[in-house]
Amino acid sequence: MTTNTRAYAATSATTPLGPFRFNRRTPRNDDVSIEILYCGVCHSDLHTARNDWGWSSYPVVPGHEIVGRVTAVGADVKNFKVGDHVGVGCMVDSCGHCPSCNQGEEQHCAEMFTMTYGAPDRIDGSMTQGGYSDNVVVKEHFVLRMPDGLDLKGAAPLLCAGITTWSPLKNWGVKAGSKVAVVGLGGLGHMAIKLAKAMGAEVTLFTRSPGKEADAHRLGAAHVVVSTDEAQMAAVASTFELIVDTVPYAHDLNPYVPTLAAGGTIALVGFLGDLEPPLNTMPMVMGRKALAGSLIGGIKATQEMLDFCGEHGITSDIEMIRMQDINDAYERMLKSDVKYRFVIDMASLKEEA
Amino acid sequence: MTTNTRAYAATSATTPLGPFRFNRRTPRNDDVSIEILYCGVCHSDLHTARNDWGWSSYPVVPGHEIVGRVTAVGADVKNFKVGDHVGVGCMVDSCGHCPSCNQGEEQHCAEMFTMTYGAPDRIDGSMTQGGYSDNVVVKEHFVLRMPDGLDLKGAAPLLCAGITTWSPLKNWGVKAGSKVAVVGLGGLGHMAIKLAKAMGAEVTLFTRSPGKEADAHRLGAAHVVVSTDEAQMAAVASTFELIVDTVPYAHDLNPYVPTLAAGGTIALVGFLGDLEPPLNTMPMVMGRKALAGSLIGGIKATQEMLDFCGEHGITSDIEMIRMQDINDAYERMLKSDVKYRFVIDMASLKEEA
Repeated sequence: MTTNTRAYAATSATTPLGPFRFNRRTPRNDDVSIEILYCGVCHSDLHTARNDWGWSSYPVVPGHEIVGRVTAVGADVKNFKVGDHVGVGCMVDSCGHCPSCNQGEEQHCAEMFTMTYGAPDRIDGSMTQGGYSDNVVVKEHFVLRMPDGLDLKGAAPLLCAGITTWSPLKNWGVKAGSKVAVVGLGGLGHMAIKLAKAMGAEVTLFTRSPGKEADAHRLGAAHVVVSTDEAQMAAVASTFELIVDTVPYAHDLNPYVPTLAAGGTIALVGFLGDLEPPLNTMPMVMGRKALAGSLIGGIKATQEMLDFCGEHGITSDIEMIRMQDINDAYERMLKSDVKYRFVIDMASLKEEA
Repeated sequence: MTTNTRAYAATSATTPLGPFRFNRRTPRNDDVSIEILYCGVCHSDLHTARNDWGWSSYPVVPGHEIVGRVTAVGADVKNFKVGDHVGVGCMVDSCGHCPSCNQGEEQHCAEMFTMTYGAPDRIDGSMTQGGYSDNVVVKEHFVLRMPDGLDLKGAAPLLCAGITTWSPLKNWGVKAGSKVAVVGLGGLGHMAIKLAKAMGAEVTLFTRSPGKEADAHRLGAAHVVVSTDEAQMAAVASTFELIVDTVPYAHDLNPYVPTLAAGGTIALVGFLGDLEPPLNTMPMVMGRKALAGSLIGGIKATQEMLDFCGEHGITSDIEMIRMQDINDAYERMLKSDVKYRFVIDMASLKEEA
């Protein structure tokens, strides 16, 4: 039986989000039905609502940092029961049989994973709708277990911002004593600092402007380097095994390459587009330095990240909002006026007709 | 005692190479004195002779693919004796105590390794001079042992072209069954194919123009893909763990990124400069794909490569020239008119006054 669902949706690239009703699909045998308690607000939500990437279809209900409570499980569901606290991130399905899926890297699914919102369901072709809503129905494999004791509100952003920064830290082997830098102090950047610090790394924040020292140190950074200060940049030459670059717009990467140690990598997690000004390969060749991309992370890695956050008491720094405040929140996000993630309290949706 | 040395040198960026006499330094206790038998001709020689990189100092004797015979050893030399066949590559010294040197990655020496030609000696400050000469004096640590049975003429290019392509293949874990692609079929490219094939990889050559199939297959490539043919490129989407890009000039990397498997890397070994047209990060982020540089390789790796080539009977495809033919050879190199490396027979230097 379908579930009539309260939500907020964008109905075009130029209209604000507003109340929207639709039916969730009838749950299948491997589905988990979830009452949504909280949903983080990711920049991707805004990009999709406004069709910044050109692939949006409307109406679209954004939201892929979902935390909720299980209300029903299908006959084949083994790992969840009614009442469990669960999370849903950016993926709700994938082909399940390609090399990447077989390795638990569903984010690289050869047939493209099914996005939590704005993608056709692999079985019935209906468009998925995200977490700015009071419930969601998700295939068990893509449902995460929330660790006991972790604040559920602050944990919501772990489902995207958390795994997006965890994945490069793990993939490039960050461990106790590693020297890691983070570019940009926003939703992703503040999580990268917290996670790298908890892994035992010595963390440096690169920032374009002074004044972020106190917050960076509070989050776990040992050092703050102003990237426009040549002397400060020269002082960290050949230092970092990994730089996690969270900046979501085109920016000059050339000043960062020399700060990598030989064999080091800059992992881009925020920017999709042309690298301008052009990257100069000289310092990359001279020191076997690399530029890589990284996209969220697999389901297994996401659960490991959540469990790690449970053990270390790591959540996102958040500002709670009501669903009705989402358009204002988007405007503030565009000005980086949030420390460091908005999370929607879905109880506010009950006020809607 | 210094050794009066016959050589060919460039005396300015615009004059052809010609006969040149100079004195090699007095051998030190850790030095090996080498009679040069053969020297390969690398593009870097030409770039340096003509000051293409802006850092040349004159006169300069190029040549860093040196094979010869030991004529004397210093009191502290342990691993070589008179009569041994030895090689010298791009490096003749390094600081010896930085993290990279301690890891045997002298090519990433924090104080910059001492180049075989055109660099100040670390002890007396005199400029090093390369292998277009009848002898060379080199610190033992930077002298390689030539494996028995390997053709010494064809082995000369292993000292630069060989290690330059071996290093990324080893660093990115190529093994039996790996899918590896090579961009460009020249001195570096043909070595990359031979080495990857001998490691057991399934090798694809990317080329801009048809007509190289027969040679590519002879060298060990299983497949040839014309990179300007969109259908052929689409057919190898998401295929390669590693692409070794040997092209020495700016070229568009964007068509190659989608041919990487998830987690794959393009290793640039030939091009120093700005990446234009700009690299688009979208497919890099989507598939955790990387672009990296790679520079020659450490001394330990160079010896491993030579030993591997000895076991597998791998040498470069060469065309022998006399020292007096070097300027013509440079012109032919600029037209890619060599299969695949010129090697100078240093016996020809004896004809000089």
